[in-house]
Amino acid sequence: VSNNHPLVGVLMGSDSDLEVMREACRTLERFEVAFEVRIISAHRWPDECHRYARTARERGLRVIIAGAGGAAHLAGCLAASTTIPVIGVPIANGPLHGVDALHSTVQMPPGVPVATVGVNAARNAALLAVQILAVADEGLREALSDYKQALAENVQERDQRLRTVGWKDYSRPS
Amino acid sequence: VSNNHPLVGVLMGSDSDLEVMREACRTLERFEVAFEVRIISAHRWPDECHRYARTARERGLRVIIAGAGGAAHLAGCLAASTTIPVIGVPIANGPLHGVDALHSTVQMPPGVPVATVGVNAARNAALLAVQILAVADEGLREALSDYKQALAENVQERDQRLRTVGWKDYSRPS
Amino acid sequence: VSNNHPLVGVLMGSDSDLEVMREACRTLERFEVAFEVRIISAHRWPDECHRYARTARERGLRVIIAGAGGAAHLAGCLAASTTIPVIGVPIANGPLHGVDALHSTVQMPPGVPVATVGVNAARNAALLAVQILAVADEGLREALSDYKQALAENVQERDQRLRTVGWKDYSRPS
Amino acid sequence: VSNNHPLVGVLMGSDSDLEVMREACRTLERFEVAFEVRIISAHRWPDECHRYARTARERGLRVIIAGAGGAAHLAGCLAASTTIPVIGVPIANGPLHGVDALHSTVQMPPGVPVATVGVNAARNAALLAVQILAVADEGLREALSDYKQALAENVQERDQRLRTVGWKDYSRPS
Amino acid sequence: VSNNHPLVGVLMGSDSDLEVMREACRTLERFEVAFEVRIISAHRWPDECHRYARTARERGLRVIIAGAGGAAHLAGCLAASTTIPVIGVPIANGPLHGVDALHSTVQMPPGVPVATVGVNAARNAALLAVQILAVADEGLREALSDYKQALAENVQERDQRLRTVGWKDYSRPS
Amino acid sequence: VSNNHPLVGVLMGSDSDLEVMREACRTLERFEVAFEVRIISAHRWPDECHRYARTARERGLRVIIAGAGGAAHLAGCLAASTTIPVIGVPIANGPLHGVDALHSTVQMPPGVPVATVGVNAARNAALLAVQILAVADEGLREALSDYKQALAENVQERDQRLRTVGWKDYSRPS
Amino acid sequence: VSNNHPLVGVLMGSDSDLEVMREACRTLERFEVAFEVRIISAHRWPDECHRYARTARERGLRVIIAGAGGAAHLAGCLAASTTIPVIGVPIANGPLHGVDALHSTVQMPPGVPVATVGVNAARNAALLAVQILAVADEGLREALSDYKQALAENVQERDQRLRTVGWKDYSRPS
Amino acid sequence: VSNNHPLVGVLMGSDSDLEVMREACRTLERFEVAFEVRIISAHRWPDECHRYARTARERGLRVIIAGAGGAAHLAGCLAASTTIPVIGVPIANGPLHGVDALHSTVQMPPGVPVATVGVNAARNAALLAVQILAVADEGLREALSDYKQALAENVQERDQRLRTVGWKDYSRPS
Repeated sequence: VSNNHPLVGVLMGSDSDLEVMREACRTLERFEVAFEVRIISAHRWPDECHRYARTARERGLRVIIAGAGGAAHLAGCLAASTTIPVIGVPIANGPLHGVDALHSTVQMPPGVPVATVGVNAARNAALLAVQILAVADEGLREALSDYKQALAENVQERDQRLRTVGWKDYSRPS
Repeated sequence: VSNNHPLVGVLMGSDSDLEVMREACRTLERFEVAFEVRIISAHRWPDECHRYARTARERGLRVIIAGAGGAAHLAGCLAASTTIPVIGVPIANGPLHGVDALHSTVQMPPGVPVATVGVNAARNAALLAVQILAVADEGLREALSDYKQALAENVQERDQRLRTVGWKDYSRPS
Repeated sequence: VSNNHPLVGVLMGSDSDLEVMREACRTLERFEVAFEVRIISAHRWPDECHRYARTARERGLRVIIAGAGGAAHLAGCLAASTTIPVIGVPIANGPLHGVDALHSTVQMPPGVPVATVGVNAARNAALLAVQILAVADEGLREALSDYKQALAENVQERDQRLRTVGWKDYSRPS
Repeated sequence: VSNNHPLVGVLMGSDSDLEVMREACRTLERFEVAFEVRIISAHRWPDECHRYARTARERGLRVIIAGAGGAAHLAGCLAASTTIPVIGVPIANGPLHGVDALHSTVQMPPGVPVATVGVNAARNAALLAVQILAVADEGLREALSDYKQALAENVQERDQRLRTVGWKDYSRPS
Repeated sequence: VSNNHPLVGVLMGSDSDLEVMREACRTLERFEVAFEVRIISAHRWPDECHRYARTARERGLRVIIAGAGGAAHLAGCLAASTTIPVIGVPIANGPLHGVDALHSTVQMPPGVPVATVGVNAARNAALLAVQILAVADEGLREALSDYKQALAENVQERDQRLRTVGWKDYSRPS
Repeated sequence: VSNNHPLVGVLMGSDSDLEVMREACRTLERFEVAFEVRIISAHRWPDECHRYARTARERGLRVIIAGAGGAAHLAGCLAASTTIPVIGVPIANGPLHGVDALHSTVQMPPGVPVATVGVNAARNAALLAVQILAVADEGLREALSDYKQALAENVQERDQRLRTVGWKDYSRPS
Repeated sequence: VSNNHPLVGVLMGSDSDLEVMREACRTLERFEVAFEVRIISAHRWPDECHRYARTARERGLRVIIAGAGGAAHLAGCLAASTTIPVIGVPIANGPLHGVDALHSTVQMPPGVPVATVGVNAARNAALLAVQILAVADEGLREALSDYKQALAENVQERDQRLRTVGWKDYSRPS
Repeated sequence: VSNNHPLVGVLMGSDSDLEVMREACRTLERFEVAFEVRIISAHRWPDECHRYARTARERGLRVIIAGAGGAAHLAGCLAASTTIPVIGVPIANGPLHGVDALHSTVQMPPGVPVATVGVNAARNAALLAVQILAVADEGLREALSDYKQALAENVQERDQRLRTVGWKDYSRPS
């Protein structure tokens, strides 16, 4: 995996969001999807935000993931200037616990959707990006099936272990 | 446009949701995307919900749009059993005004994303579906560009009219 | 008490919920009600979720307790496929503090109830299960009366101690 | 069906709640479960509230359904003085849209559960009562299975009709 | 100050509330108002709750202060059975941060008021009790004037100190 | 009853609040408590707000009831400048449904309580005022007992009528 | 007053917002402040949004008022590209009642403030604009003093009328 | 910079708010705007609050910044008695996480605006004050442009560093 020819752009409004957004990067890496990571603030660096969105398709990007907190405009600002799918990750970064970011990300006006995932749910944003890419990529479809299978098996193993050791002695695997 | 070979499934938990979800149908029709419409309740007809999700990909569906209110599980239930992208439309159908449906749709656990749009935002769900299909469809990409252009022109026309007639006399076009 | 012939199923969506759900287990144990404990995710292991619900009654289960957080669908998913009472425990596991899980658990559509208890209230879920079993079990009725009496006496003792030592010196018993 | 030997008590804090609670009555009637209906306010007629709860079991009641709005204490007040299951229906009757009633009903302290259903969800309260009675009543178990089947068939019929007439022409059956 | 002939009853639903309610005791002590402190749960010791309220006036109590969390019924339960003023203190004791207790305390039905103060605001509850007693007590009226004056002076002193040392060096007095 | 020698001041921030506050007037009238009614805005007529509060005690007022919506400061503004009890009525007058007014009224800082009643609960504000006056008025104590008795009897009558005519035919008395 | 040489720009995201925003226009007109009115969507016409903000100062604008609903980005988008004060009006236009617009408008990141007024409070936005212009305009300062005086007198007149006709007979002036 | 001839008053309701409000001071200092800092409680020192507001303009103040928590009346109280712009900073200081302060600050009645910034957003309050002063100060306009440029460059530098070191190794500059 390299940053050459990225298919997915992982953007965040501030480097304080990286702690959350790293999970998106790890997940894309797991699926061997090329991506690039950028810090671009809709409010503090608006020109780059628009430039990035306007040139996204021609640069070969197929999906954008954007994480931001508070009055989280990054995903919506990008969606305003591109027609590739934009996935929004509301980030909980202050006293309102991400409810502000959720509202600011999901309640977009008619005509300009943002595909919103849960608060801080960067992993799911990456999975959604992979699902979108898989529309045109048989290999990713198989990888997603494997991933889904692995999810189930992980629960099964924990369930089995719980049934074996009992609820009193069970401790979570690290 | 016909219901033959649908690429998008438009599902709703109850026929009372159709008033909202019709806007998704109209939008898909505008883009000449083949789709099917179904009433499938995650709670009252769970077998069909799972069957639908499990067979979605092999039946040729590429995106599912699911609208539901209250403890809105339809989108999540579908996403649990398929790897094609599932778009959730939280529907405001009771005293909690859709906040319940928003929470139930967007706050999915790690591993199983739902691409959530705004409360009652069925049109945006359809646009997001088109954006996803456009990853592998040049024609849809152009149609989306045209749509985006039309959105802007629609605002421009209203802006122009407001500037011409003034804020006192302006009335919204029907 | 053993896991043989369980009357109550205690389910959770993730082993991270066990810390909360252990209190349900302890309470059922106190009432000498046989139960089994399972980790079954509605979203990551949906087949087992449905299988569990569909076979619950024939396996002799009379009540299911299901704890989950976020877009908490576990209880509703189970209730969709069984007619035995399902008790839902919304679990606070993220930035929205369980409000999301409460909405997702309690706001079920007409026809498919979930008996919801308070956020993280696993003990009350178990007590409710015992109350339900007591409809057909005289011994449990008496045990519940004793429990209720003990609750009152516990408050009385603390009240008495407070009145004796005074509000300045009172410290909570461990 | 008569009010003789009722198994379920349907209580409400005010006759203004009857519009919502009638759905519980209709549902119990459908299942041929004997019930009684009372207006008993926890705050305006507290003596009767306690008397009712304390004598409920000896009078042969097996479940209580209690609907109330605002600082909805009726269900909790009843649960404080009986060990039979109490089902709470939060009623939306003022500017806070039932969020106040939901909090007041569901957030009970450890030791005193209330089985809470959705805001205004009186039908589900009745169904839950039937599910509880069915723990000791084979006939009700069968009736519940039939009801669940009918729920699914009702959705199926609407789904079939939608597929036949199409989303443009579908209108909801009265 | 002694517990003889108390004019104010300070009640709480659990000894876990004492940490908050001590501030009410300290404030009443400061005004030399006789009070008694009790742990009486509306849900776990309902008989005492009603007995306390019914006999409050004849025992010479003039005001009751009641603190509780969650589905906080204590104040309302007391108000149901007495006509002396009941002051409610919503206590934040769980994931919903006291919003549940606030709703459960303040949203009382017509006819049965609870004088609600802020979340965890036990000091203000005591001051309100003193204000009520002062309706018939000239000494307390003067003490309240002095207290109000002291409040202002305390702010003035801090303001003066801030202006003297500057905002960079100011530290709060312990 | 006349406005001479009023014991209670009923204030509101705007004449649009009168529709809600009339219920306070009616209730005070029922108890034959002398009161005066004023429109005094904390924000638009602040001088009168302070003058009113500062002279309230010397003018013989014993309780103030203040109703306001939005950023409802009226009750708090009055409480800042008097030591007689101030009862706040949060009024729902806009899109936030009174949640804003509730927060603005109840969450007062330490030292300056406002006795808050439910949203729009003007009747309860008046009853609380009567309860406060009854601390020094035997006649009002008896009137309050009668009122409480009448509340119970009103519920009893409705309950009796419901039991007589049945839940299907019951209609609310006008 | 004309649209020549406007000092204030009144912007809205959609012509559906004009009903609310007209009040801002009326208020600016009353103060004889020149303004222009525009419909410019941050999401549907982003280029104009940025162009407008970037050229605002050189075009002689001194304040911008921006009203928008839902994920209301208009004010923040403008503030990102200008240093003149931007006043945001959250507009309640859907099921979330403006809470979404309030969060999206007020919770701006450090470095890019939006001066937010209440939900739908277009008149206050205009007054705030006038207050800002008055920093450099003696005439507006006097006009604001007159306006404030008129506000007080309006309340006084209503108060006087209420005291004259009594609370039973008072009706609001049209 | 000195406290002589201050143009901005930075007020807070309690010295516990200073931790938040210091950021406003630092920002004003950066712009070399003269300001004064005061602790003035609307509820505990109302006379000074009014005196401050009434004399603000004649003393040469051009903007007031007011930070307060809970039922945050300070900004509104000041705005009631002056016509210079008042900027409100809602402060999160208790269990409701600043939602109470936000509502109390922003939801002002028609005629009396408060320019509200985000919860705890003291820096933005100061920037807004500078923007307002810049209406009549060319030097500040240039300083704001420089500040905006610096904001963008700061993001650019972090973005550049992230792109250089990669998302795995990036750590935030202290």
